[in-house]
Amino acid sequence: MKKILVIHGPNLGLLGQREPAIYGRLTLKDINEKLRKLAAMKKIKLTIKQSNHEGEIVDLIGKAKSKLDGLLINPAAYTHTSVAIRDAISASGIITVEVHLSNIYSREEFRHKSLISPIAKGTILGFGYKSYLLGLEALLDII
Amino acid sequence: MKKILVIHGPNLGLLGQREPAIYGRLTLKDINEKLRKLAAMKKIKLTIKQSNHEGEIVDLIGKAKSKLDGLLINPAAYTHTSVAIRDAISASGIITVEVHLSNIYSREEFRHKSLISPIAKGTILGFGYKSYLLGLEALLDII
Amino acid sequence: MKKILVIHGPNLGLLGQREPAIYGRLTLKDINEKLRKLAAMKKIKLTIKQSNHEGEIVDLIGKAKSKLDGLLINPAAYTHTSVAIRDAISASGIITVEVHLSNIYSREEFRHKSLISPIAKGTILGFGYKSYLLGLEALLDII
Amino acid sequence: MKKILVIHGPNLGLLGQREPAIYGRLTLKDINEKLRKLAAMKKIKLTIKQSNHEGEIVDLIGKAKSKLDGLLINPAAYTHTSVAIRDAISASGIITVEVHLSNIYSREEFRHKSLISPIAKGTILGFGYKSYLLGLEALLDII
Amino acid sequence: MKKILVIHGPNLGLLGQREPAIYGRLTLKDINEKLRKLAAMKKIKLTIKQSNHEGEIVDLIGKAKSKLDGLLINPAAYTHTSVAIRDAISASGIITVEVHLSNIYSREEFRHKSLISPIAKGTILGFGYKSYLLGLEALLDII
Amino acid sequence: MKKILVIHGPNLGLLGQREPAIYGRLTLKDINEKLRKLAAMKKIKLTIKQSNHEGEIVDLIGKAKSKLDGLLINPAAYTHTSVAIRDAISASGIITVEVHLSNIYSREEFRHKSLISPIAKGTILGFGYKSYLLGLEALLDII
Amino acid sequence: MKKILVIHGPNLGLLGQREPAIYGRLTLKDINEKLRKLAAMKKIKLTIKQSNHEGEIVDLIGKAKSKLDGLLINPAAYTHTSVAIRDAISASGIITVEVHLSNIYSREEFRHKSLISPIAKGTILGFGYKSYLLGLEALLDII
Amino acid sequence: MKKILVIHGPNLGLLGQREPAIYGRLTLKDINEKLRKLAAMKKIKLTIKQSNHEGEIVDLIGKAKSKLDGLLINPAAYTHTSVAIRDAISASGIITVEVHLSNIYSREEFRHKSLISPIAKGTILGFGYKSYLLGLEALLDII
Amino acid sequence: MKKILVIHGPNLGLLGQREPAIYGRLTLKDINEKLRKLAAMKKIKLTIKQSNHEGEIVDLIGKAKSKLDGLLINPAAYTHTSVAIRDAISASGIITVEVHLSNIYSREEFRHKSLISPIAKGTILGFGYKSYLLGLEALLDII
Amino acid sequence: MKKILVIHGPNLGLLGQREPAIYGRLTLKDINEKLRKLAAMKKIKLTIKQSNHEGEIVDLIGKAKSKLDGLLINPAAYTHTSVAIRDAISASGIITVEVHLSNIYSREEFRHKSLISPIAKGTILGFGYKSYLLGLEALLDII
Amino acid sequence: MKKILVIHGPNLGLLGQREPAIYGRLTLKDINEKLRKLAAMKKIKLTIKQSNHEGEIVDLIGKAKSKLDGLLINPAAYTHTSVAIRDAISASGIITVEVHLSNIYSREEFRHKSLISPIAKGTILGFGYKSYLLGLEALLDII
Amino acid sequence: MKKILVIHGPNLGLLGQREPAIYGRLTLKDINEKLRKLAAMKKIKLTIKQSNHEGEIVDLIGKAKSKLDGLLINPAAYTHTSVAIRDAISASGIITVEVHLSNIYSREEFRHKSLISPIAKGTILGFGYKSYLLGLEALLDII
Repeated sequence: MKKILVIHGPNLGLLGQREPAIYGRLTLKDINEKLRKLAAMKKIKLTIKQSNHEGEIVDLIGKAKSKLDGLLINPAAYTHTSVAIRDAISASGIITVEVHLSNIYSREEFRHKSLISPIAKGTILGFGYKSYLLGLEALLDII
Repeated sequence: MKKILVIHGPNLGLLGQREPAIYGRLTLKDINEKLRKLAAMKKIKLTIKQSNHEGEIVDLIGKAKSKLDGLLINPAAYTHTSVAIRDAISASGIITVEVHLSNIYSREEFRHKSLISPIAKGTILGFGYKSYLLGLEALLDII
Repeated sequence: MKKILVIHGPNLGLLGQREPAIYGRLTLKDINEKLRKLAAMKKIKLTIKQSNHEGEIVDLIGKAKSKLDGLLINPAAYTHTSVAIRDAISASGIITVEVHLSNIYSREEFRHKSLISPIAKGTILGFGYKSYLLGLEALLDII
Repeated sequence: MKKILVIHGPNLGLLGQREPAIYGRLTLKDINEKLRKLAAMKKIKLTIKQSNHEGEIVDLIGKAKSKLDGLLINPAAYTHTSVAIRDAISASGIITVEVHLSNIYSREEFRHKSLISPIAKGTILGFGYKSYLLGLEALLDII
Repeated sequence: MKKILVIHGPNLGLLGQREPAIYGRLTLKDINEKLRKLAAMKKIKLTIKQSNHEGEIVDLIGKAKSKLDGLLINPAAYTHTSVAIRDAISASGIITVEVHLSNIYSREEFRHKSLISPIAKGTILGFGYKSYLLGLEALLDII
Repeated sequence: MKKILVIHGPNLGLLGQREPAIYGRLTLKDINEKLRKLAAMKKIKLTIKQSNHEGEIVDLIGKAKSKLDGLLINPAAYTHTSVAIRDAISASGIITVEVHLSNIYSREEFRHKSLISPIAKGTILGFGYKSYLLGLEALLDII
Repeated sequence: MKKILVIHGPNLGLLGQREPAIYGRLTLKDINEKLRKLAAMKKIKLTIKQSNHEGEIVDLIGKAKSKLDGLLINPAAYTHTSVAIRDAISASGIITVEVHLSNIYSREEFRHKSLISPIAKGTILGFGYKSYLLGLEALLDII
Repeated sequence: MKKILVIHGPNLGLLGQREPAIYGRLTLKDINEKLRKLAAMKKIKLTIKQSNHEGEIVDLIGKAKSKLDGLLINPAAYTHTSVAIRDAISASGIITVEVHLSNIYSREEFRHKSLISPIAKGTILGFGYKSYLLGLEALLDII
Repeated sequence: MKKILVIHGPNLGLLGQREPAIYGRLTLKDINEKLRKLAAMKKIKLTIKQSNHEGEIVDLIGKAKSKLDGLLINPAAYTHTSVAIRDAISASGIITVEVHLSNIYSREEFRHKSLISPIAKGTILGFGYKSYLLGLEALLDII
Repeated sequence: MKKILVIHGPNLGLLGQREPAIYGRLTLKDINEKLRKLAAMKKIKLTIKQSNHEGEIVDLIGKAKSKLDGLLINPAAYTHTSVAIRDAISASGIITVEVHLSNIYSREEFRHKSLISPIAKGTILGFGYKSYLLGLEALLDII
Repeated sequence: MKKILVIHGPNLGLLGQREPAIYGRLTLKDINEKLRKLAAMKKIKLTIKQSNHEGEIVDLIGKAKSKLDGLLINPAAYTHTSVAIRDAISASGIITVEVHLSNIYSREEFRHKSLISPIAKGTILGFGYKSYLLGLEALLDII
Repeated sequence: MKKILVIHGPNLGLLGQREPAIYGRLTLKDINEKLRKLAAMKKIKLTIKQSNHEGEIVDLIGKAKSKLDGLLINPAAYTHTSVAIRDAISASGIITVEVHLSNIYSREEFRHKSLISPIAKGTILGFGYKSYLLGLEALLDII
């Protein structure tokens, strides 16, 4: 049975309340449920974590390293600033799919640069919670 | 029955032969077949075009305008240089999903800037031919 | 009798429907009629073309070369990306007036750079269809 | 009867003598006469000012505010450096047309950036004194 | 009794009318009254000037030099363009507090650079007319 | 009774010892006391936190969200690097005042860019511990 | 017998008339004759095409792919703007020599960047029509 | 008898008091005396002006135009920001020497760009009041 | 007996497994042993920490402040992004040596900028685990 | 009999040994022989020099000035850094052809800028030793 | 008796022949004579050197160090590229005046940056050979 | 017995006198002695050269090529400007360690870019003469 780690980056715990025009009205719990349903259907084991801490996300990836088949990550704000998470993914060697709820390329200039994209297998962005589901499908397809 | 236009940008007619390490071994015909199979399953009408001509792509979008429910486009090289295609999409008002076979953010610097992303609904990149299938699913989900 | 070529660049065929807040509600046909009426009054011969193809616009200018007294061009999206049209105008040596419906300097950053302005005689922008009429008057005044 | 303010920016008092290859051989007085003739024909009231002082131009616009239907301005050197004149125009809310005698986009790099263009209704440049006349026509057309 | 000079930069004479969404509905006279009331309470002598002229502001600071205990300045548009006012403040050696009605860092890119901030003691921005009152308090606290 | 959260960013626990020429000789405890005294006078409830952890600051803001009337924050080093804290403030929707002890615009180039300023209500900087007191007053005035 | 494709980019059909100070007085026909004479001497088969259309040039290269031993191309204006032609050459894998009539590095800044040079075998520029002949010799030498 | 205009830019009226480490201890009156003494010796007529107003300096140059043999200018702060003064000098056609008391290239980055240098005959900087005397000699030598 | 703190930045816990071509085959434990052996020989007291958390590293430095004679730090990914760690080192005033296993200047562009180097005493990079030993020797030599 | 000077820039004495994948396996002696053979055939006099010294190359060009009909130069590393060699060529007025063994535009970014190209007649690059032979032919053709 | 070293940088040996429109018609010998005449009058000892070699100029300054009262240098092309000459001047501590025959700020962009100006006492440029004489006078005045 | 070449770049012959606050009080002779003592202890053969000439340093490396086991270089000013020395090191293939007396990253901006670092094995900077000794140890450890 394949094992996938899902990481939600900073502020994603506020989903549903936070700027719904940009991020949609589903809560993180709603999204996780949808992810779990899909995982059940595909018969894979899903571990889901949310953290506002860059270091915690680095810890999670570092520890998971040998026990994982794939990583689905929405690095949120850390997308644009974290070399540490990028290095963690490179170091772990885990096949990684990057997702974003919103279309980061239609927002502020500083959100147009992703430090994660160059080392991810692929990226899916702009489809709200659907980005996660498509990302999980894409990931399962590769691993 | 929903109508979707699929546009393959320049040089995509060479798929399968062209740099397979980057673009994969499937030919465009293979990809189109997979797209048609999915469309049949989803009961939507698919029109598929490939063109090396920026102007032709602009023509296609301009003419399709009122008769379409969605556009799935891999603008290929024109991703980085065509304001005309961007304007055509904005002008048409058609809901658009942008896809790329390769991860453009892990390639040359000049491929890191997409003129299409800011006006697309969303973008999917890096999953080879799977980018198209995921993109079609995403598009169907929205329209 | 003076001969003037009018060229409408990409997506201008969609005028009237396309983002009327930016481009106004007149169709291209309406604008052409107004241009023809003014030309009749001024007793000049007008040829009007619209094309979405950079190469076609280059062709038009190249062929017109010796038979023209002036060129009135709205290069639209190609304003910002086409060295080829710029070179065609320089090579033809035809006196050229550049017009824009919208104020390109109050829109996206990438529209603030015109490759055509430096080699045009003059530029008129921001007055909707009136830009064309003023441009034609300016052109007649010079040639 | 409509009231229009015409402002000539710095050094325009030297017209006719100053670099005639760039600015033409007409004096400012000649241009003003042509403007007045056109105004008489169109039955509008014209007030014409020339100033080398940024602050004076800001004063003029600030005071005119509620008594004007339109502003025709050639900001000359202040085009490229004056946030204060830009703010005065925005603050006054007067419909404004920007004109230039020369084609600023075929001159030195630092003249390619206009602080006024983004907040003007439209811009006309490169047609010598004709830029003013076309500008006045454009302005009358809008107000 | 401490003497403070208050300088209002260009276009601030239009307050109350000018873009109230950005600058608030109080007139300059209203703000001056509030400043005078606070000054009376704190028993300091206030001189208040408004000018649209960079040179006049430089004159004011140059002349005030030895007779002042502090300068409270809202350089408005000259914030971003005036080396002369910056040099006047440095040359005068007067302790200076810079204030802005609006939050200049949430507006156009060119307003994000203040030539005055690096040589001011401190800066207060974004609180409407309250910026002045807080600025006066801050200034009194230092001198 | 209004509730305000005060957040001191990284290294502010060292105040009094750390480079006193730049940051002053008061300790963080001294500053907090002054803040509490002012709060008592104004009859508002103050919660004060100091953290060196970006993620912790994001946590604090995320949790406080619905229970707060205002946020007074000195983001210190994270001013220049944290998109996560910026997003937390935007997501929380809490009215926020940004303060700095030193004048960040007279220091190293990389301190001239604040990621927080554009989404704060206003900013106060350069007045040492007084920046906090003025900031609290400003905040109370708005909420 | 070796097969070589020669492609002349946009506006080169105007040679002889177009700015002779920069491009020389020979017509494209003259140059083609010289190329054919050299080809005859070297016993190679030459196909020569001129096009103003980016897409057409991409078509030509894409179709020629398997039937060619080498490509001699003067991309003219597309040198600086066409990722599509660059990709076509990379995709085709044909050994390519880039030539220019004029010295692009002594002209406008925007002509100093060639998108084709990095993927060509070599480049020859500045020798007028001789650039073609030297380019053909260089190409024959390699294939 | 040759006529020379000397213009001292903004804040130079404060010389002697203003930052003596950078600008020296002589007052403007002292420098003018030294200039007048040298002029007397060389038998030339000197007019000396100081102004803090950009517009006034433009006025001075514009009016002087036909009555002058040379201009000696220390544009001070306007060196870096005034296109208007640059244009006034170009328009007047008067032979101009630019001088600076301090070495502008060893000060803040924004002082390293002179808008006046490119259109001056020559520049002398860094020698305190001596820059003026050397500048006057240089000017006399040319005219 | 001198006290030295050694800090290993993010992802260094993965050494030996993580990209051995870049970082070598020794584990962090191996390196620490070598450091301890050298410390024993030199008779100094060594405290060694590894953390993936920026805030934790700031905490460590802040607390250690008065009890330390020197700091040996490999900031890893935080080298390029952490103003907070830089400020912690400046605030602590501890003599600091920066080391890197790999040659950061022969890797990606974004690794060429170290925020730590300008405030470190010195830097040693590119010698694998030997960088630490040389760094410790250098540090002992200074303190 | 025409006289040509050939200059090989720094490190070219190491050819054959130095990175043969980039520069080929011929030694400088081999290349010189080929150049001499071609020169003999064309009946021109060739002087060949290699130097690692920028100043020596400037000397060579300065002295040769009046006795030469052409210069064939591979400036190697000095291509990107030597204004002095550029000035020597401009000052000498000798017709100059620039050659490079490798394709400098497919190598490191800093090799994409040639200070020599803008003042050379033409440039040939990427054909290994053949670049020299083609360059000599091109040069003979012009002089 | 004061001792002054005069250094003429690269290509200045060609003066009189080299681009006389820019550099004038005097030879270096002529200029040196004028310098020697002035030196005799002022009773100072002059040593004059010309070199095309950066290293030689560094040698000259390094050796002269303790035996000199001043350095008059026209670094020519090395103005823009030589950190080594800059360091030599800083290291020697000799009071230095930089001169240029031409106005470097009205020439190519790359000549607008002088590495020498920031560490020279002052700079004189644009007056042809007169720049040297004025520079010598300025130098004598200081030492 | 291993052979190492030590190269001291420009101006290092002045050590001890030159800006001792930055470079320390030891002369080059003192440093060389320390290097020789360490070499004797480690039983390696050391050749030490100092040169102010870029070309000479290129010569030294080019000639040493096959007879050396390692290169220890302090390129001084050439660190930031010499592509030729970089190429010489790459061409020679000798294992190279770069050292600097001062911390180049805490000095002027133009010293923050080393052309040598990317092709050196490693770099040691900021420890005064100790940088050389640590560099020699590091080098011995590798070869």
